[in-house]
Amino acid sequence: MIPSDIISKKREGKALNNNELNKFFNGYLSGSITDAQMSALLMAIYFNGMTNNETVTLLDIMVKSGSVMNFNNSSGYVADKHSTGGVGDKISLILAPLMAASGLKIPMIAGRALGFTGGTIDKIESIPGINIFPSLKTFKSWVINNGCAIVSQSNEICPADKTIYSLRNQTGTVPSLPLICSSILSKKIAEGIDGLVMDIKVGNGAFMKTKDQAISLGRLIKNIGTSYGINTDIVFSSMDQPLGRFAGLACEVKESIRCLKGDGPIDIMTLTFELGTKLLLQAGLAKNKNSALKKLKSLINSKKALKHFKSMVVLQGGQLENFESITTPKYEKLIHSNKEGIINFMNTETIGWALIELGCGYSNPKDVLDYTAGIEFFKKIGEEIKNKQPIYRIFNSDLNRLENASKILSRTFDIGKNIKKNKLIL
Amino acid sequence: MIPSDIISKKREGKALNNNELNKFFNGYLSGSITDAQMSALLMAIYFNGMTNNETVTLLDIMVKSGSVMNFNNSSGYVADKHSTGGVGDKISLILAPLMAASGLKIPMIAGRALGFTGGTIDKIESIPGINIFPSLKTFKSWVINNGCAIVSQSNEICPADKTIYSLRNQTGTVPSLPLICSSILSKKIAEGIDGLVMDIKVGNGAFMKTKDQAISLGRLIKNIGTSYGINTDIVFSSMDQPLGRFAGLACEVKESIRCLKGDGPIDIMTLTFELGTKLLLQAGLAKNKNSALKKLKSLINSKKALKHFKSMVVLQGGQLENFESITTPKYEKLIHSNKEGIINFMNTETIGWALIELGCGYSNPKDVLDYTAGIEFFKKIGEEIKNKQPIYRIFNSDLNRLENASKILSRTFDIGKNIKKNKLIL
Repeated sequence: MIPSDIISKKREGKALNNNELNKFFNGYLSGSITDAQMSALLMAIYFNGMTNNETVTLLDIMVKSGSVMNFNNSSGYVADKHSTGGVGDKISLILAPLMAASGLKIPMIAGRALGFTGGTIDKIESIPGINIFPSLKTFKSWVINNGCAIVSQSNEICPADKTIYSLRNQTGTVPSLPLICSSILSKKIAEGIDGLVMDIKVGNGAFMKTKDQAISLGRLIKNIGTSYGINTDIVFSSMDQPLGRFAGLACEVKESIRCLKGDGPIDIMTLTFELGTKLLLQAGLAKNKNSALKKLKSLINSKKALKHFKSMVVLQGGQLENFESITTPKYEKLIHSNKEGIINFMNTETIGWALIELGCGYSNPKDVLDYTAGIEFFKKIGEEIKNKQPIYRIFNSDLNRLENASKILSRTFDIGKNIKKNKLIL
Repeated sequence: MIPSDIISKKREGKALNNNELNKFFNGYLSGSITDAQMSALLMAIYFNGMTNNETVTLLDIMVKSGSVMNFNNSSGYVADKHSTGGVGDKISLILAPLMAASGLKIPMIAGRALGFTGGTIDKIESIPGINIFPSLKTFKSWVINNGCAIVSQSNEICPADKTIYSLRNQTGTVPSLPLICSSILSKKIAEGIDGLVMDIKVGNGAFMKTKDQAISLGRLIKNIGTSYGINTDIVFSSMDQPLGRFAGLACEVKESIRCLKGDGPIDIMTLTFELGTKLLLQAGLAKNKNSALKKLKSLINSKKALKHFKSMVVLQGGQLENFESITTPKYEKLIHSNKEGIINFMNTETIGWALIELGCGYSNPKDVLDYTAGIEFFKKIGEEIKNKQPIYRIFNSDLNRLENASKILSRTFDIGKNIKKNKLIL
């Protein structure tokens, strides 16, 4: 069967069989299928979707294109959390050491900033010396020794996904549910996990703007993850405002440390505990939700989770000694309210784009990030504000970009008269 | 605007504006847009279509990517005919000299075999010495001197169409009406014509299998052609059986010469006159259909059309002296009927694939053709046949391929009891 016949078959809405998918995707990896043919197929998949069988086959091709970790010899439940991306989402930095303190193993492969959403890898890289590109062997040893590690996707893990994701990003073929699902799950499966909790973000600062889209993705991931033998829980959480009081790079690491010290904002802690509870129950380490929650809170209060965070940083070569002074921004500016009332809307996607402008993400893949950059949110949805009172403090080390971001941010909030509540867990 | 945003816009079903289309397509030609991005956009166009304004803009980009011929200084109506492709379709070889004899100028840029359909350029290349790659200047001089010439698309004419068509062929993005329309019309517009007659083939040996598809394409071409200032007539003709008594390469040139001598099969002559009549009326060289038909018939009977064919071949460097002996096939074989009755079905697409196997078309772009190859049809739809009577004679100069084609052809006809009539002009 020639490549254009396989593309035409999918274009006509027919399901491709395992043989056709293997031939096409492995042909792409070996160079006999061109970029042009692959992107035409990806666009046809965008329009005509994939059956669950096709999605599992694609997932399998991606997993088998690289190495798969194996924790069988170590004791403990191996798990991970994945978020579909948002603004101020630093949950991974808190949840990984918290679950390690609970006795789980968390081999977390995290991502970089994408579009207007922040990236865990970019945030953790603000810590001087930190190594997020270990060999798989070293990565595994960190996880076994300390219970958790956070690293970047290397060429050893799902290289097929890495190549195809980059092509999708260039060709407008990102927002396809089966492609998103197989991309996310392939990396998680390659981690050798027993369980997964997915944080699917919904709202004006998420890729999924409506609950219907989020539910479709959640259902698909639950289905495919389960059929692959992975305990899969889905949490839907609101991204109609940034998470926590800070968004940016080093400032999010600092806020995470405050959370691990027991001094975290309620929204961050609520979501962290919601996700952590699911994993504890999966692992059989708690009888019910209440006892799971109690256990997690005690691990924060006893600073045991904080200890796992610090030893994770040390194992990965990071230095927290002069972190504060090194990551102090050169410039800052306040954004003020223009009337009195209650915050009832935050345009979270635009706030995300302002963060990119400040230096926290990529307009081009080769952009150099500004680790000192970020935004502090003095007020959030449902909170009162006076006229001329500051709503945001923005900071970075490039005055020009600070000014640009400030212009963007002045149009990102709405002040009304009625109290509006933003439900976090949907 | 970045390329993936333009692709995403079309993917979401929105129309692209002139600026976006120009940026994307001209960017592709200059190398800043990749093959992968172009094929993703083409697939999105397949699914979401194009408005008439988008189609005209694309057409314009293709025309302006190369030279446009200009016949303003010469007298006479400049016109062309285009067929969407079929089996045994040698109309161009007869119609071009016939219209030249009528006083029209026919600068015909023709194509090669594509899929299961035959190509006028491949057929005319069976004449030794013929030059189908003249410069535009030479091409124009032939048309002015003799009224017609048949050449291949050079890099001077619509190079954008040439590049994009080759990409579409590899990426399963051929069957999109606006892409087909802009590809066909761009080359015709570059010929500098005043008028066009389109022969849209419908049936089991055409790309358009149903009349609905054909009508949609016809309507679009008429619309876009007219809005470009070209008199455009559409003829729908049946491709439920091969056209004429021969299909192949040199054998179709020979059959065309017999037609020009007044000894042609009724289906070929009917369709030639139908198309020719439209052009004569467009040119104002006939008062009505009847007088046009009378004029065309007289140009056949007087051998004036034949004279134009012969001088076209001579001008283009071709030699017809030893044509018969040079193109005599080495092998031939008869395909027999297996029962008595009336032919009521011919699988024309499969007959087309058998012709490729005999050596009349391309499985790979680099295949070398066998000019001696072809099929003679002793019987066609509605004709009686006896048991064990021959239905086809097949011939070529490669015994192995002759045998393969023979196996394919034994399953291409159906014999029944009732007379079924095949209407040629729909």
